[in-house]
Amino acid sequence: MTAFQATADELAQRFGLIVHGDGTVPVHGVATLSGAGQGQLTFLANSRYRNQLADSRASVVILRQEDAPAAPATALIAKDPYTTFARIAALFDAPPVREPGVHASAVIDASARIAPSAHVGPFVVVGANSIIGEGAVIGPGCVIGDDCEVGAATELIARVTLVTRVRIGQRVRVHPGVVLGADGFGLAMDAGRWINVPQLGGVRIGDDCEIGANTCIDRGALEDTVLEEDVRLDNLIQVGHNVHIGAHTAMAGCSAVAGSAKIGRYCLIGGAAGVLGHLEICDKVTITAMSLVTSSIREPGQYSSGTPLTDNRSWRKNAARFKQLDALARRVQANEKEQP
Amino acid sequence: MTAFQATADELAQRFGLIVHGDGTVPVHGVATLSGAGQGQLTFLANSRYRNQLADSRASVVILRQEDAPAAPATALIAKDPYTTFARIAALFDAPPVREPGVHASAVIDASARIAPSAHVGPFVVVGANSIIGEGAVIGPGCVIGDDCEVGAATELIARVTLVTRVRIGQRVRVHPGVVLGADGFGLAMDAGRWINVPQLGGVRIGDDCEIGANTCIDRGALEDTVLEEDVRLDNLIQVGHNVHIGAHTAMAGCSAVAGSAKIGRYCLIGGAAGVLGHLEICDKVTITAMSLVTSSIREPGQYSSGTPLTDNRSWRKNAARFKQLDALARRVQANEKEQP
Amino acid sequence: MTAFQATADELAQRFGLIVHGDGTVPVHGVATLSGAGQGQLTFLANSRYRNQLADSRASVVILRQEDAPAAPATALIAKDPYTTFARIAALFDAPPVREPGVHASAVIDASARIAPSAHVGPFVVVGANSIIGEGAVIGPGCVIGDDCEVGAATELIARVTLVTRVRIGQRVRVHPGVVLGADGFGLAMDAGRWINVPQLGGVRIGDDCEIGANTCIDRGALEDTVLEEDVRLDNLIQVGHNVHIGAHTAMAGCSAVAGSAKIGRYCLIGGAAGVLGHLEICDKVTITAMSLVTSSIREPGQYSSGTPLTDNRSWRKNAARFKQLDALARRVQANEKEQP
Repeated sequence: MTAFQATADELAQRFGLIVHGDGTVPVHGVATLSGAGQGQLTFLANSRYRNQLADSRASVVILRQEDAPAAPATALIAKDPYTTFARIAALFDAPPVREPGVHASAVIDASARIAPSAHVGPFVVVGANSIIGEGAVIGPGCVIGDDCEVGAATELIARVTLVTRVRIGQRVRVHPGVVLGADGFGLAMDAGRWINVPQLGGVRIGDDCEIGANTCIDRGALEDTVLEEDVRLDNLIQVGHNVHIGAHTAMAGCSAVAGSAKIGRYCLIGGAAGVLGHLEICDKVTITAMSLVTSSIREPGQYSSGTPLTDNRSWRKNAARFKQLDALARRVQANEKEQP
Repeated sequence: MTAFQATADELAQRFGLIVHGDGTVPVHGVATLSGAGQGQLTFLANSRYRNQLADSRASVVILRQEDAPAAPATALIAKDPYTTFARIAALFDAPPVREPGVHASAVIDASARIAPSAHVGPFVVVGANSIIGEGAVIGPGCVIGDDCEVGAATELIARVTLVTRVRIGQRVRVHPGVVLGADGFGLAMDAGRWINVPQLGGVRIGDDCEIGANTCIDRGALEDTVLEEDVRLDNLIQVGHNVHIGAHTAMAGCSAVAGSAKIGRYCLIGGAAGVLGHLEICDKVTITAMSLVTSSIREPGQYSSGTPLTDNRSWRKNAARFKQLDALARRVQANEKEQP
Repeated sequence: MTAFQATADELAQRFGLIVHGDGTVPVHGVATLSGAGQGQLTFLANSRYRNQLADSRASVVILRQEDAPAAPATALIAKDPYTTFARIAALFDAPPVREPGVHASAVIDASARIAPSAHVGPFVVVGANSIIGEGAVIGPGCVIGDDCEVGAATELIARVTLVTRVRIGQRVRVHPGVVLGADGFGLAMDAGRWINVPQLGGVRIGDDCEIGANTCIDRGALEDTVLEEDVRLDNLIQVGHNVHIGAHTAMAGCSAVAGSAKIGRYCLIGGAAGVLGHLEICDKVTITAMSLVTSSIREPGQYSSGTPLTDNRSWRKNAARFKQLDALARRVQANEKEQP
């Protein structure tokens, strides 16, 4: 992909690793254990797959000390091979260079401030009083409303919308189709019709966050919706108004958090999992995929709901019995009493 | 946020409320019970939180007659404090003014008709025979295809797509990323390959509806997909072709309705809930979050499916037993028969 | 919708059908069984609804031989009425004609290659080294990054984003808001902070696929994310990095497939269903709506998880018992042992 190339020795020196075998072998790319060929570097993160090493044609493998004897080629010894691989692989990534400056087609409000080192692409709109920081990249088709702020070195990749009062920290990456700061879903019923509750708050995104494609984060009703630093959201996630997500929490695709819920730090929210409104989840909680959190969680740990997948015929029988579960439990209790 | 300011007396007169305490106190903003400071107005909607009143530093509180004795400051007495708050808070909201006229960059088909009082923003495309009504706002980056109609005072906030044959009523708000009128998912298997069933219908959206960010409503196969008036959809919702949603129904984020389902009036569909195709749900039905409706519902009321969240270890044990539930019920029955 | 018109005889000849009744009757449109009027053609796909034929005012009905006696008007006899209807209805569909050429507002990198017969609409961006094939349609507001390829006769309807290294085959339709080739959600925890694992792969979409509105398909980490030919995805679907989906598989709206899962050919994935990462599903598997696949599936067939919907009061009782299910099963076992 790029012309980057280094020897095993050079990589070892750069990342503080130990070399087993021929350190002069050149590496010009990275690949999977099974897909790697000559000149490519791969990794073994899980010793369970150690027996796949023998078949790998990679020139260099990153692995743990204990797996080193099984290495078929040059080995780089690391405490955490996956993290080390991530760091080395980044050398072979060549994100497009975005030149500083504002594309001629962009429509920028006179009151907006764009840092000279920022890149603003074609068909971008920037509203009143908004600020784009140093080295920020506003990709093609982004719409930034009024009173927004994009921090230094933050990238809105393409077609991102910041509606209003959205403040994003530094080094954040926002993927295409994301909508930040849309009106929260605040409704009141009045004489048989809905009226909107004004959404006067904003959205605050901490440094080093990542927000996946087509994800939505609504702005708060009276205070802000907040993501602390280093929060990682996958694609198609819904974050309601006034939600607060703690630092280093990661949420997988299609998960959803209803309004005013508060999620702690270092939580892992599984794919398509849901959190009801106004709940609190403490730090270091894992919610497995497609589970629904219906009350606050005060203890770290892993939580789940749902039923296991089976063939549809068995499932129909068991699911029908679920409707009788309370009655069944009462019958069991009655049986127990009857017994002498 | 804005320069709007009024005294408690002025607000009381405007909204027909009774003042307790000093009516001359000025209000220049709104806030939460705990966050409000001097010059700010807040509300107490639920008497359960009455003991939080003492700590509030708000200058004015909207509350019910029975909570008035606990008011720490000027009180405005309302039958429904939340609705009254919504109406007053709207005075402090200052949505950006959109000047009438078509931005120079917009690409408008010669056969389209744009009302003189409508606003059409940068990078908008309007296709053949489409009509934009009086006072409508077509925000930046919207794409309106052929044969569409946007009613008076309706706002497409930004980056909304109307594919074709989409007719939207008056005073509707459509949030960024919404796609209306895409091809319904109509397929027929023919000799081992899928063929598309042409989607010749359109989409009709009634007056006063709201459609949340990145929500999709497909156009009908032969007839229209319909939202009656005052339907409120949150973000990331999927509405399949030929669905019909009754007036005043609200759906929370990530919910989904499959093709040809018919949902009544005044229904509440919880977050990430699903409705299978071709079903009918009568008026005034509430579906709780992440529930799946698999057969028609003929009686108003609240309906649910799913299992409760527990720690993963307990969940694993119970979930494993779910697979044996039918067998367990049979064993209980056998036990009962065996007993004399 | 269009001026297309044909007699029953002409349609029969064109599609190899047998006519019962007056073959000279003209058809100028298609409609549902109940909605069709004079001059319109409809179909009866399911003999169960045969008694609805009597009330239809359609001029022509496509149906099976065995239903022909109940036809109220001219009948066209087909083995598969629905598929035949789909083919005939297509004649009455008039998708907008897109003239070859690049709109003056489009921003095309000098190294990109656009086929002369392709249509590139307003506000489109095409990046470095990207290729647009013969007869392809790139609708308004699409953003195509670097190193992408759009095959002949493929249509990106509007506001589609291809981030980077996305290769799409021929005759593919991509609906508005779709994001292809965004960074996969690859994270590694390093000293209490997340670091990104570079996503160096791409996305490959086979011929004749369809990708619904606001759906996301991430690019692979080291190898490509792959959809084989004729895969059909509905709206708001999440496909994680390195997923592989076999030919002719269809997925309904809001479903999700986590990273590195492999789905076979001719599978049907229901709405809002989920597949966990790294699993394999063999050919011809059906997953019902909102089910979660948590282990690999090796046998064709229909699979489900979840519990049935009931009124909330019953559900609460039964759901509470779910938490005691393992204990209940143990009590039943104990009862059985106690019995002599």
